[in-house]
Amino acid sequence: MRKMVLAANANAAGSHVGEWRHPDAWDRPAANIANAVRLAQIAEAGKFDLLFLADGNGVRQLDKPDLFRATSPSDRPGVFEPVTLLSALAMVTRRIGLVATATTTYDEPFHVARRFASLDHISGGRAGWNLVTTSNPDDALNFNHSEHVARDKRYDRAAEFAKVVKGLWDSWDDDAFPQDKASGTFLHPEKVHVLNHQGTHFQVRGPLNAPRPPQGHPVIFSAGQSETGKDLSAQHADCVFAIEGNLANAQRLYADIKGRMAKFGRAEDDMRILAGVTIFAGETEEEAEALFQQLEDLVSPAVGVDYLSKMLGRKMRDYPLDEPMPDFDDEHVGHTGIGKGILRVAREEKLTVRETYKRILPQMGGNMFKGSAKQVADTMEEWFTTKACDGFMIAAPVVPTGLERFIRLVVPELRRRGLFREEYEGRTLRENLGLTRPNNQLS
Amino acid sequence: MRKMVLAANANAAGSHVGEWRHPDAWDRPAANIANAVRLAQIAEAGKFDLLFLADGNGVRQLDKPDLFRATSPSDRPGVFEPVTLLSALAMVTRRIGLVATATTTYDEPFHVARRFASLDHISGGRAGWNLVTTSNPDDALNFNHSEHVARDKRYDRAAEFAKVVKGLWDSWDDDAFPQDKASGTFLHPEKVHVLNHQGTHFQVRGPLNAPRPPQGHPVIFSAGQSETGKDLSAQHADCVFAIEGNLANAQRLYADIKGRMAKFGRAEDDMRILAGVTIFAGETEEEAEALFQQLEDLVSPAVGVDYLSKMLGRKMRDYPLDEPMPDFDDEHVGHTGIGKGILRVAREEKLTVRETYKRILPQMGGNMFKGSAKQVADTMEEWFTTKACDGFMIAAPVVPTGLERFIRLVVPELRRRGLFREEYEGRTLRENLGLTRPNNQLS
Repeated sequence: MRKMVLAANANAAGSHVGEWRHPDAWDRPAANIANAVRLAQIAEAGKFDLLFLADGNGVRQLDKPDLFRATSPSDRPGVFEPVTLLSALAMVTRRIGLVATATTTYDEPFHVARRFASLDHISGGRAGWNLVTTSNPDDALNFNHSEHVARDKRYDRAAEFAKVVKGLWDSWDDDAFPQDKASGTFLHPEKVHVLNHQGTHFQVRGPLNAPRPPQGHPVIFSAGQSETGKDLSAQHADCVFAIEGNLANAQRLYADIKGRMAKFGRAEDDMRILAGVTIFAGETEEEAEALFQQLEDLVSPAVGVDYLSKMLGRKMRDYPLDEPMPDFDDEHVGHTGIGKGILRVAREEKLTVRETYKRILPQMGGNMFKGSAKQVADTMEEWFTTKACDGFMIAAPVVPTGLERFIRLVVPELRRRGLFREEYEGRTLRENLGLTRPNNQLS
Repeated sequence: MRKMVLAANANAAGSHVGEWRHPDAWDRPAANIANAVRLAQIAEAGKFDLLFLADGNGVRQLDKPDLFRATSPSDRPGVFEPVTLLSALAMVTRRIGLVATATTTYDEPFHVARRFASLDHISGGRAGWNLVTTSNPDDALNFNHSEHVARDKRYDRAAEFAKVVKGLWDSWDDDAFPQDKASGTFLHPEKVHVLNHQGTHFQVRGPLNAPRPPQGHPVIFSAGQSETGKDLSAQHADCVFAIEGNLANAQRLYADIKGRMAKFGRAEDDMRILAGVTIFAGETEEEAEALFQQLEDLVSPAVGVDYLSKMLGRKMRDYPLDEPMPDFDDEHVGHTGIGKGILRVAREEKLTVRETYKRILPQMGGNMFKGSAKQVADTMEEWFTTKACDGFMIAAPVVPTGLERFIRLVVPELRRRGLFREEYEGRTLRENLGLTRPNNQLS
């Protein structure tokens, strides 16, 4: 049986908005390379498949001073650029995969192909590219746009972008560089392939000025859950990062994405789907619950109320914290179903304003598994064996102790059940994921 | 007295076109991270100020199969992307500066500002950006252009690009991120500066999503020797990489560039000018000469003749190698004065075709100092003390042994004369170069 894939968030910041204030959390987490090195080495010691670095090209919520003041991990402005960070981490690790985010909307295929080829050479075949089309509309303002590129155009561009990047990675045959001193043959000029791509969004001649990457193609990640996003994944992604709140929905999404692969000539086994989850694991269920509560208490009311305001689409600052949630008319709440759901729960359980924001904040990091090692392993096994996912993208509530605790408590339980590796199977990320090395399409 | 600046080419490839075939040269130099690590550590042990990585975004001379077959270092297609390589090298070095090339013509200021800020954080203040406008016209074809951007437009864009990058580096005050767990103050929202740049070439809102770099601004390098290039350097560059073939011309260029700084409100001491030079150093003059001859013999006739053809702008393959150079009409040779100069020398010295290409090939790496340690140190001292330069960008003829030999033979001689450091003066590249840390212009 194939083993479960385990991926760790490389952000050196926990998934919970109150995390950074916890005594066990890193001191001074902003752009701190020592923390990032330590985190990478913890994950590698746990035999994780890969480190994953989410990213955006801008600072969010400039308009929300309080949220901005104690920002959530993905909104924090004190971060590294992903590829520079993972190149550095390549030198202090040996086997773990290194997956960085890069946007197809505000970058160029030649640059992206080149950086990930370079990272793959530096790391000996451990690079991955998380393809995103950029979700934060404000990033556009940093790239000569007055507004975000429209969704359909972004996805159309992304598909062509991925095609060009793969073509550039195939610029050279694997044996194009004999570098033979005796004969004076540095390279074989007949083993270069000039792409000459002429498309709707791009004209790119090639070839890339790097030898073919050790993996052939660095592993491509994608995460979109819209119709176009799922098609893009089915066509181009080796791994998909999926977020669903419950088992049934995750199973449905898994079948949906894998079911789309055939029309692009791909087999379902050519892709791994990873479920995003924050894991609160304890020696006992009570210990996990206590950590959860401790983090809740580290969220200042200003941050909590601003976050609630954002979810409901209404200013909440003028309502007393410890009185019941106001009974808003459902029609004037939020832009999506989320706001209505929050109000429904608050009404049914008669929650105060404070209780309401505490209830919603943990979901910021997506799904959550909470409990003893056995309870968490049970849930992971169920998701894995019932085709809700091929593995997990794990966010720790507190970094680095949450990851250490997961590795100390849950990973041995997964190993006992034969669900997770004892040792790395291969040298490259593709080998560890059980994915084949792509043939050169231009040869 | 200020010490001389010494910079080493980080390319892990020698400057001479025959270098890679030499027994002492690296085996398998293409995209080889182990070689790059070793080279960085050799240069740091020699207390060099910095590693410098030249770069382009394309493969040159696809139309010249023989040149392509045994390519010169700058034309080699098997290279790392500069910032990924230097991020990796940051983790295996502690004090040496890390200067990477990035183009202003085919990249975005937000991306460049971010990558170099990230490299500066990762390396603890050792990053430098070599600003280029891209010299190889064919690079345009990899970035959706049918021809290279015109020179004037490139330089106009470059000046605005540099201004935006510096503005983005000033997005945050140095003390904007207290990250205080007790009070819950992650950052001070009043210490962010939104750039809101609206210019001819760029609209960039900001702020950058990284704290201010340790150096304030990573060190900016530039190399253009045209009028617009010299003005760009005088306005924006902390260091200039200059190539002149003799002392008088180098002195003239030095005075010219520094003389332009006042009109941009800068003092001459705010800039270091580094002369590019290939150094053949031996225990004796004869040993240096022998190495030089050995390398000449490693250039295959096909490579030599193709290179000569390129310089003269004429096909040279049909002329016998060991007969005198044909007596072409000067009017039909080359596009610049270089071809005419080659013909003049060949005529005066009655050189054969083979002798002619051997004569011109060593100049590919720019200027050349050749001789015993004392002779090389004498020349370096003369250039340094007579204001031809503030230091040198050193290319070794064979890597790594040429650099090791320079450090073993010439560096002690420079130290005896008080011209070069015994130990690093500071922790950051700016400190070692004796350059001040820029104030935040947006505070």
